Amino acid sequence: MSFDYSLTHPLNLRDVHRWDADHDVVIVGFGAAGACAAIEAASAGADTLIVERASSYGGTSALSGGEIYLGGSGGTPAQRQAGFTDDTEDLYRYLMLAGGRDADDAKVRLYANESLAHHDWLVAQGVTYKNTFIAERIVEPETDDCLIWSGSEEAWPFSEAAKPCPRGHTPQWPGWGGGQLLMRVLAERVAALGVATRYDTRAVALIVDDGGAVRGVVLRAYGDTVFVRARRAVILCAGGFAMNRDMVRRHAPQFLRSDEPIGSPGDDGSGILLGQSAGGAAIHMDEGFVSLPFYAPEALIKGIFVNARGQRFVNEDGYHGRTGHHAFHQADDRIYLLVDHATYQEPPAIARIGIAAAGETWEEVERDLRMPAGTLTATVDVYNRHAADGVDPLFHKAKQWLQPLIEPPFVALDCRIDYAFYPHFTLGGLDTLPTGQVLDATRTPVPGLYAAGRTTCGLPRWGAGYSSGLSLADATFFGRQAGRHAALAVRDAVRSAA
Amino acid sequence: MSFDYSLTHPLNLRDVHRWDADHDVVIVGFGAAGACAAIEAASAGADTLIVERASSYGGTSALSGGEIYLGGSGGTPAQRQAGFTDDTEDLYRYLMLAGGRDADDAKVRLYANESLAHHDWLVAQGVTYKNTFIAERIVEPETDDCLIWSGSEEAWPFSEAAKPCPRGHTPQWPGWGGGQLLMRVLAERVAALGVATRYDTRAVALIVDDGGAVRGVVLRAYGDTVFVRARRAVILCAGGFAMNRDMVRRHAPQFLRSDEPIGSPGDDGSGILLGQSAGGAAIHMDEGFVSLPFYAPEALIKGIFVNARGQRFVNEDGYHGRTGHHAFHQADDRIYLLVDHATYQEPPAIARIGIAAAGETWEEVERDLRMPAGTLTATVDVYNRHAADGVDPLFHKAKQWLQPLIEPPFVALDCRIDYAFYPHFTLGGLDTLPTGQVLDATRTPVPGLYAAGRTTCGLPRWGAGYSSGLSLADATFFGRQAGRHAALAVRDAVRSAA
Repeated sequence: MSFDYSLTHPLNLRDVHRWDADHDVVIVGFGAAGACAAIEAASAGADTLIVERASSYGGTSALSGGEIYLGGSGGTPAQRQAGFTDDTEDLYRYLMLAGGRDADDAKVRLYANESLAHHDWLVAQGVTYKNTFIAERIVEPETDDCLIWSGSEEAWPFSEAAKPCPRGHTPQWPGWGGGQLLMRVLAERVAALGVATRYDTRAVALIVDDGGAVRGVVLRAYGDTVFVRARRAVILCAGGFAMNRDMVRRHAPQFLRSDEPIGSPGDDGSGILLGQSAGGAAIHMDEGFVSLPFYAPEALIKGIFVNARGQRFVNEDGYHGRTGHHAFHQADDRIYLLVDHATYQEPPAIARIGIAAAGETWEEVERDLRMPAGTLTATVDVYNRHAADGVDPLFHKAKQWLQPLIEPPFVALDCRIDYAFYPHFTLGGLDTLPTGQVLDATRTPVPGLYAAGRTTCGLPRWGAGYSSGLSLADATFFGRQAGRHAALAVRDAVRSAA
Repeated sequence: MSFDYSLTHPLNLRDVHRWDADHDVVIVGFGAAGACAAIEAASAGADTLIVERASSYGGTSALSGGEIYLGGSGGTPAQRQAGFTDDTEDLYRYLMLAGGRDADDAKVRLYANESLAHHDWLVAQGVTYKNTFIAERIVEPETDDCLIWSGSEEAWPFSEAAKPCPRGHTPQWPGWGGGQLLMRVLAERVAALGVATRYDTRAVALIVDDGGAVRGVVLRAYGDTVFVRARRAVILCAGGFAMNRDMVRRHAPQFLRSDEPIGSPGDDGSGILLGQSAGGAAIHMDEGFVSLPFYAPEALIKGIFVNARGQRFVNEDGYHGRTGHHAFHQADDRIYLLVDHATYQEPPAIARIGIAAAGETWEEVERDLRMPAGTLTATVDVYNRHAADGVDPLFHKAKQWLQPLIEPPFVALDCRIDYAFYPHFTLGGLDTLPTGQVLDATRTPVPGLYAAGRTTCGLPRWGAGYSSGLSLADATFFGRQAGRHAALAVRDAVRSAA
C-alpha cells in the first residue's frame, strides 16, 4: 500500500519500517521551553533527544530580553530587596485577569503557587540576577539590572484586582538581549545532563499508532529522513506561528495590519500543526501580543492616545502591549499620542513615532489633523479638567500620570498602525493541561503528546492582558512540567496498542 | 488490539468489522446545506443517505426567516421588478468587503457569477417568491413579501465599494419564519429523489483509511451503533457551534457576554470536530454574527449609538449585525441609543431595549447616565452640527438618516449587552474549497470529505460584514456544490488504500 505523511498528516506506526534512533522522550524545538523540558526529562532519568531546525539552540527565546514574570510566596529576592512583598493570591488574581475571559485557572493556580520556587530553580541552573530594581517605566533595562514593572500591575483594572508588584526579572546582562544569557545557561545544563541533540533537523511528521497515541517523530536532516521512536512521549516546543502569514491570515488577520512579526523563522506554526495532526485542539488562535513601545521616556505616559475620531480608547499607563492591543481594535490606522510642551520628550527611535501635527492651541492641532471641530478638543478638555483634580473618570489612568495638557506648543505624535513599530507574535496554540499533555477538543489527553511555550495557549492568551516576561515564564515553567511528566509517562493501555 | 473512536478520533477502516449500510454519499445534517447537497448528489445519480440527529429535517435553517442573499447578473425577478439592476461585479465587491481581511475570493467569485442561476434553481425546486419589495429598513417581512434591504449595502463603507442593491429574498410565507417553507420544499425534493433518510441518528465518528481518506461514518441510533460505508464521500452539514459553550469559551469567548446563542441544539460543533478529526482545518473560529435588532421602526436609525464613555462607534445605518459587532467590541457593557422627541419610536419588543435616561437637555441625560460633563454632550454637539448640513464626517452615516437631535425630550435608550437582546451564532468552521472539499492546514483536500453551511467558514466570516441571508446563501449554494462534486468524486489513488 502507499501512504504519505506531513505536518498535517501523521505516519502510522505500522508503516514505519525501521527506527533510526530510539529515545524515551523526544523534544521538538530548542528554545526556552524545549531546554527546560529537556533538563527535567533528563533529570528524571529519561533518555532524551532534543531536535532543532536551526544550526544552534536559542529559538525566539534567545532573541528576547530574557525577562521572566516571577513572584508570589512573599516575593523573590529582587522583589524583597526593593521592598515588595508579593502575595501569591495577588499574583494569582493578576494572572487570572491577564488571561481574559478564558484564563486557564489550573495553570494560573499552579504557576502562582510555584513561581518563587521556579525562580530558585532558574538560579540553580545558573541564571544570574543582580536583584536590583529600576522604578521607572521602561521596556527593558539598558543595564544589567533586574527587576522592572513589566506589566499593567499599577494600571486599572489590574490595580483594583491585585496589589501591584513589579515582577519582570531580567538576567544580569548588559542591556537588551538577556535572552542570550538565559539560553546559554539552559543549553549548558542540557548538555551537562547528556541530552542528545540534533541541529539543522526538522520534525516533519508525528508517528501515531492505531489507538491515536504518539509513538515517535519523522525528522529530515541534510536530505535524509530519520525515523525516531519516542518510547514515552514527544514534546512539541516549536514556537508560535507569527512567521506563517497564511496561518495568520486564516486565524488572526488583524495582525496583517503590521509588517512586524517578531520571532525566529521557526515560528511558522509547525509545532501547532504537528499537534493538531495527532488530534490536538488549538485554541484562541486569533489572539496575539501587539505592542507600541512608546515609552521610555515615561513622561509620554502623561500624554493621551486618541484614534482618528479624536476619541481616547485606553488608559495610557498600562503595559505597552495593552496599548497596542487597543490601538489595533480601532477601526482605522490613524492613532495619535497627544502631549504638550511639559510632557513631550523624544519618543524611542525604535517606535518610529513622528510628529503628525503641532500648534499653539489644541484647536490648531485638531484642524491640522483634519478632525471635525469639537472632537479632539472635547477629548482634551474633559481629560484636562479631571486631570487637574487627579482623576480620570473615563479610563482610570493612575494619578501619578495625570497632568493637564495645557502648556503650548501642543503636539500630536504620529503612531499610525501602517507606519509606526507594532511588533507582534501569536498567543493561540495547543490546549494543554498543566502537565503539558496536549488535549483534544473534548479536553481528553492525546497519549504520548506534550507541548509547551508558544506552540501552546498558555498563561498569556489575551493581548490586552499581556505583560513582558509572561511568555518566557510560561515556556520555562510549563516546559519543565512537560519534561518531568513525559519522563514518567506510562502509555494509556486502553487507547494504545502495545 | 483495542481502540476507541469519537467525534475527535476517527475509526480506522481496518477496525470496521461489518458494514450495516453502504451508500455513495453520506450527508450528516438535514438543514438547508444538507438538503441541497442531497438534492444535487441524488440528481447526479449517487446513492445518497442523509442523517439527522433530530426527529425531523430542518435544523437551524427551519428556525430562520428563510431569507437568502441573491443577486447579480442584472438582477433577480424581484430586484428587476423593484427597479434595480444588480451587476455581478457589485455583488462581488460587496461580498469581498463583507468577508473581511480574509474574504474567500474563490467562493465569492463563484457565488457572484452564479447567484442568479441559484435563485432560479431554488424556484425550480419549488421555493416561491412573491417578488414584491419592501423599501423600509426591517429585519424580516411581517407579510409574505419578498425583497428587503438585508445588509449594509447603502451604508458606508459598502456604499462606496459597490452600487447598493437590496438582495435579501424571503420566501412567500406570512410573517417571520419562512425557513419552515424553505425546508419543507427542499425536504420534499430530497424525498422525491429517493434519498435515504435516518432521523434520530447521530454521527459519532468518521471512518478513515491509512491514507487519511474518509471512507464512512459511525452512527448511533436508538442505542445501536451503525457502520455506514461512504463509497464516494461524506458531507458534513451539521451546523455551527454556538450551542457548545465550552467551544465558544475556547475560541470566541466574547460571545459569552450574551446568553442568546441562536440555532438548534445540533449547533454543538460536532460537524467541525468530525472534520478536524480527519485532518480538516478550522479557521476564523473567533468570528460570529451578533445582532442588536433595534429597527424597525427605522426612525431609530436616526439616533446615535454611544458607549459608556459617550463615544460613537459605528454608523447607525448599517445592518443590525454590524451594529451588534461593534457594540461587542466596546470595552464594557453599557451601550446607549440616543434619540430625541422627533426620532423616538418604541423599539421592537424583541430587542429588550428600555429607557436608561431622559431629560429636557442632553446635559441632563449625560448627568443621569453618570457620564462626565462634556462627553456625551460633545458627541451630540458634533453630530448635530454636521447632521444639519447633511454630513457625518466621523462615521459617514448616509444623508437620509441624518437629522439633528434637537427636539426635547431627549432619551438614552438602554442597549446594555448584559440585558438587551444580542442573539449570536458562530461563523468559524472548516476551511473548504468552492467544491465543498474540506482542506487541511496546508490547504490540501482531505480525500472523501466535504462540508457546507455553518460547519464551514464560508461567504460570511466577519461579524462586521454579515448580512441577513448570507448564511443561507452560503449553505444552499455551497451545499449544492458539495453534493454535486461528491457524487462524482474519484478517490485519490495515491493517498487512499483500495
